[in-house]
Parts: sequence; structure tokens; C-alpha cells
Amino acid sequence: MPRIVTLTTDFGTGSEYVAQLKAVLLGSTMPPMLIDIAHDVPAHDIRAAAWLVGQACLAFPPGALHVVVVDPGVGTARRLIWARLGNQEFLCPDNGVLSWALHRAPLAAAHAIPAVDGAAATFHGRDVLAPAAVRLLEGAPGPSLGPPLEYLETLAWPEPEDAPRGLRGEVIHVDPFGNLVTNLPATLWPRVAAAGRLRLGPRDVTTLVCTYGDASPGTAVALVGSQGFIEVAVVEGRADVRLAAAVGTPVSVG
Amino acid sequence: MPRIVTLTTDFGTGSEYVAQLKAVLLGSTMPPMLIDIAHDVPAHDIRAAAWLVGQACLAFPPGALHVVVVDPGVGTARRLIWARLGNQEFLCPDNGVLSWALHRAPLAAAHAIPAVDGAAATFHGRDVLAPAAVRLLEGAPGPSLGPPLEYLETLAWPEPEDAPRGLRGEVIHVDPFGNLVTNLPATLWPRVAAAGRLRLGPRDVTTLVCTYGDASPGTAVALVGSQGFIEVAVVEGRADVRLAAAVGTPVSVG
Amino acid sequence: MPRIVTLTTDFGTGSEYVAQLKAVLLGSTMPPMLIDIAHDVPAHDIRAAAWLVGQACLAFPPGALHVVVVDPGVGTARRLIWARLGNQEFLCPDNGVLSWALHRAPLAAAHAIPAVDGAAATFHGRDVLAPAAVRLLEGAPGPSLGPPLEYLETLAWPEPEDAPRGLRGEVIHVDPFGNLVTNLPATLWPRVAAAGRLRLGPRDVTTLVCTYGDASPGTAVALVGSQGFIEVAVVEGRADVRLAAAVGTPVSVG
Repeated sequence: MPRIVTLTTDFGTGSEYVAQLKAVLLGSTMPPMLIDIAHDVPAHDIRAAAWLVGQACLAFPPGALHVVVVDPGVGTARRLIWARLGNQEFLCPDNGVLSWALHRAPLAAAHAIPAVDGAAATFHGRDVLAPAAVRLLEGAPGPSLGPPLEYLETLAWPEPEDAPRGLRGEVIHVDPFGNLVTNLPATLWPRVAAAGRLRLGPRDVTTLVCTYGDASPGTAVALVGSQGFIEVAVVEGRADVRLAAAVGTPVSVG
Repeated sequence: MPRIVTLTTDFGTGSEYVAQLKAVLLGSTMPPMLIDIAHDVPAHDIRAAAWLVGQACLAFPPGALHVVVVDPGVGTARRLIWARLGNQEFLCPDNGVLSWALHRAPLAAAHAIPAVDGAAATFHGRDVLAPAAVRLLEGAPGPSLGPPLEYLETLAWPEPEDAPRGLRGEVIHVDPFGNLVTNLPATLWPRVAAAGRLRLGPRDVTTLVCTYGDASPGTAVALVGSQGFIEVAVVEGRADVRLAAAVGTPVSVG
Repeated sequence: MPRIVTLTTDFGTGSEYVAQLKAVLLGSTMPPMLIDIAHDVPAHDIRAAAWLVGQACLAFPPGALHVVVVDPGVGTARRLIWARLGNQEFLCPDNGVLSWALHRAPLAAAHAIPAVDGAAATFHGRDVLAPAAVRLLEGAPGPSLGPPLEYLETLAWPEPEDAPRGLRGEVIHVDPFGNLVTNLPATLWPRVAAAGRLRLGPRDVTTLVCTYGDASPGTAVALVGSQGFIEVAVVEGRADVRLAAAVGTPVSVG
């Protein structure tokens, strides 16, 4: 079976840039099975890419290689890296796109990828990362790509706080349905259940359910979501719009 | 050749949910060839998904497996099913997503898929259907997945009516170009040709053509479309916008 | 390894039309590795498709087959063709979609593909081009598909002009980030550097950089882009919106 290579970019779903990445990868003597994760990450949005990488990549079969090109600093001093987290490998800029994954899996190894002569200053994905992927596909071990790194750049991710007056957290992701994923882990659900409500910004969400369909359309509900966190949703509607919430909106319990 | 598995969801083109489905499927010891049919089905829109499944899936090579996850009732009493229609297999919720396909191909077999311990209540696609797909990929026959079912849930699809005052039908699909697909089958085209016009809502479409380019840009035309039905289009424009029509807009002939 | 077949259409990212194309191709006894280049080319936009094909397809490994279905004239007198440019093969309407690629690689051969009995007049992609692709996949040489052609239809592409009062060019592409790609080739960059500015419509862009991150967010910059042309960008913003520019906006130097 060919090796799995996933692609996550902010290049747009139908751009020449994605095709050029794929053309390089398929030019390998050991062509991969290409899996598109997303090409519509909001432009330059490292945090959105980091969430997606952390949630989407770690479940792949051992040995999958994930190429992530959300790289507003392309061509500047930021490094390009190969990294292994758990049993997954990554090629990406060292700008924080791995930082949510690093919440979930330990860093096993990281190496810097040197500059490539003749690489376009604005497209290291095609001219540095994709050729590095080809070397990996053809058998080179990741550490052979360049010198080891001691640490990676990370974004700050808000941690939930268990204060005297109750749990405090915030929305960390809005999914494509408009559901609001908070940073309160599913293990804290009994606290929500005991309180009978979850506060979201200025509102109390008082309908606690197991799944969306447990309440009628249009109802704001709190529940344990599929990503391991407590979520707020509006049944068959968009919670972000209906509840005027976004990444960063505070949530609290008790 | 690996088995073809197609995916049709309302998860969004770049969501972690699609990637998580794919990660489970690729973890099989018999990994499939994954084909994305659509991930931008309008959220919770079972009818739109049903049209797409009916038009898109039945032409695949024999033995293809189609995983359909448009599932607003996830985690409630609605069943999850394996079904065979013609020579195609499906894994989906029993909520009507197969009902347009059932217009076009007979149901050969259907079996319920039991609940899975530990499945997230809001993501049965990943936690129940994808593992069932893995079992099929690894050789399990569909009927082994669970108890047989006598019937499937279906949506009502409007039938054209041949009334004394003429044919009556309606728009049943708006395609990505804005073309209006009616429920009048292509075999009724001679009736339109004889009448010299097709009525769409309050308008008469009097330019009858073989293909879009037979009239000048901006002209409203009626024609036999590629999906087996009579269509209304605006040449190089959007008929839905220009003619203020949508799914349900009545059409008539004579 | 299966043969690479890429798909470029204006059918929409989740349409039944794309799935129907894929179903025909996968029905071959020699099924291909399918690569989506784009399905969200603006509807009927031959020029946008031509840019994409020219920039995206030529870098694929030798022998790749590119199926391009942006075909507003479907079913009219326009021809369908098989063509070889460099070491790449194409199946497409003869409406100009290859004309940017023909700027970059010589035409090695072109043959017309005859009409197919029973083909839907509005979907030759599925009913003529995809079956032709299947014949190629199964070993038929391209020239066997139909009679040779002496020339292909081409769109006019503006050439930069080196006038007494300086270089004159224009924007020929707006990329998904809103960056403005001009028709001034990278080899002319020393002229921009000597002038210290690039004029875009009524504005002077005076910040000349190697890459986007060399200036602060919001700055309008000129640089050598990754596609071989001089570009204008706004750092971490959309140059098309911020600088009110589009395809056709004039640029000049000196």
C-alpha cells in the first residue's frame, strides 16, 4: 500500500498551488496515497490550522505523513520542520501549526529542514516541503533531513480554570455547522449537569442533552461533543450566529 | 484494486470530521480507494443529500460502497443501516437519504447496524458507520452487520401529474450552475415541443433548445438535461436567480 | 502504479456531475489515480480555467492525463479534443482552455474526438470525454481517438510591452489570497528594482520585497511570485480588495 500523505493548506479548494504540491509529491518514485484534509483553512490563520491538525491528523494509521502549509511567514526566518508526534509524521513551518497536536501527543523528534537553492521565496510548500516529502517517501528517515531541534514554536491555548466561583473556560473552535467547541473537557460534564446550566457569554444555556436531536430545532443546547469537549449548539441551526458567539467567547459553570 | 468507498456528508469541505472518517477507513487492513462525492451538502439537508446520492452513486462500478453521513438525528432513535440497491452498497442513517436512489434502483437488502459501545452520541459516522465500513472492507458480508429490515424511511418525492389541462410538475433540484431540474422525465419532451413552451411559475419559457449554447447568453431556455429530466436554464447565467425559482416552483405544459 | 488522471471543472465542489465523471473513469478495467485540481472554476469561465490548466498541469509526472470540462458551448459545433503538450495529455473542449498551457509548452499533437451516439447534449464531459479517457487508460493511443487537428482555438493573452516610456503590462490572475499576478515575467524584476516602484492602476507600489513577511501586515508590496511573474500583494490581506484591482488592471514600470 502506498504511504498516506495528507495535505492541509490555506490555498483554496481549487488553486494552482495545491495542484503544484500534488504534482511534486506524485513525481516520487514511491508515489503516495494523497488525502486532502482541508485547503480552505482561512488565509494565514495558524490557529485554525493548528486546531484542524490536532483534531484531524493524530487518528491516521501509523506512519502517515501530514504536510501542512499555512505559512504567512514563508521565506522569512521561521524554520521549516519535520516532526514526529506519537506515530505520525509532519512537515510544516515552525509557526505554531503543531501546537494543538502537541497538547494531545508528545513530541518524539523534530528536525529543521534547510533552505533549498532556487526555491521560490513565497512557496516553500512546493519547493522545500514537498521535495522533503519525496525524500521521506523514497526511504529517507526524517532525522536525516536536517539538524535536530530542541523545541517548537507554540501558540498559547487557553486552559480552563477551576476558580472558587466555578469553572471558567472559553470557546476554542467553531465547527462548520456553527457549533461552539469549548476548552472544557468532556470529563467536566458532571459539573455542568450538577449546575443544570452552562453560561455562554451573557446567556445561560439550560437545555442539557446527549445529542442534538434530543431537543427541538432552534433550541440552544449544551452537550458532550464528539471531539472530547463540551459544546454548545443550536439544534439544526448555527449557534455562532444565533448566540452571537465566536472563538474566545467565555463560558462558565456554577 | 482497492475497493471504492465514496463519501457524502454535510461536514464542510475542510472539516476535522471528514478527516476523522477517512482516518478510520484507512486504518483498515484492506484500505479503500476513497472518493469524495460532496462534503458541502447544505447542513442537515436530507433532501439535497438524497438527490445527490440518487444521481451520483448508482453509476459507480459494481461493488462500490457509499458512506452517506447527513444525519441531523444522530444519536436519536433513527436507525443506521447497510443497504444494497442494484449492485451498489450503502452505509447511512435511515432518514431518507436513500429515497431518491430508491426511485431509480430496487432495494435488494437492508440490515440495521447495532449501537456501538462508547460511540460519541453526535458522531455515529465516525464511530459506527466507518467501523462497519472497515468490517465490509475486510470481507464481512453486509447482512452480517445486523438484523434485516423490511422497509426504509423515505421522503415524499413529487410525481408529475398528467391532468386534463396538461402536465403538472415542479422543480426538484437546482444544480450548481443554477439550472432548474424538474420532475418531468425526458420522455415527456415531445409534449413540451408540441406546446412550444414550458410554464415555470408565472412565466412562459418559449425558447426550446437541444443545449445551452443554442441560444444567446441570458436567454431562458427549456431542454432535456443530462440527468434524465426536463430542465430550465438561463444561458451562461443562473436560472434560479434570473427566474426567481427554487425547489418546489411549479412547472406545467399545455 | 495506476495512471494519474486529473480533473478540472466548473461543476461545483459537491455536484453530481463530478461524481458521474469519476464513476465512468473508475469503471475502466485500468482504473486511474484520480486527482482533483479544481471543481470551483467560476462557471463558464474559460480564461480562469486556462490559467489554472497552464499553471497546474504541466508539472505532473510524464504521462498524466488531464480532463478539463469547462464547456459553456457543450453540444454546439465546438470540437472535443485530445492533445499532447510536452509530456502531458489533455482531454477537453477546443474552446481555449489549453491556451495558457500553450504559452508554456509546445503542442505535440491534437486530434478531434468524434460525437458519440446517445451522448447527452449538455454533458459531453461524462458521455464523450470520460469514455475517451477510459480508452486511453486501457491502452489506446491518443491519435487513435480521431482525426488530427492542425490548430487549436486560443484566447488572446496580453503580452507585456516595453515602450519608450517604460514597461506596460496588466494583471492576468488573482490568486485565492487576493494576490495580483501580472504578465510581467520574473526576468523583468531588475527593471522594477531600478525604478524602485511598480505602478498598479492609479497607485505606486513602492515597497519591493523578497517575500510577503518582509513587510508589516497591511502593506502593499511588489515581489517576484512563485508562478514566474511579478506580483502585487497586501501582506496578510487581500490586494484585490485593498487596491481595487482585478484581471486587466494595468501595471507599469519606469
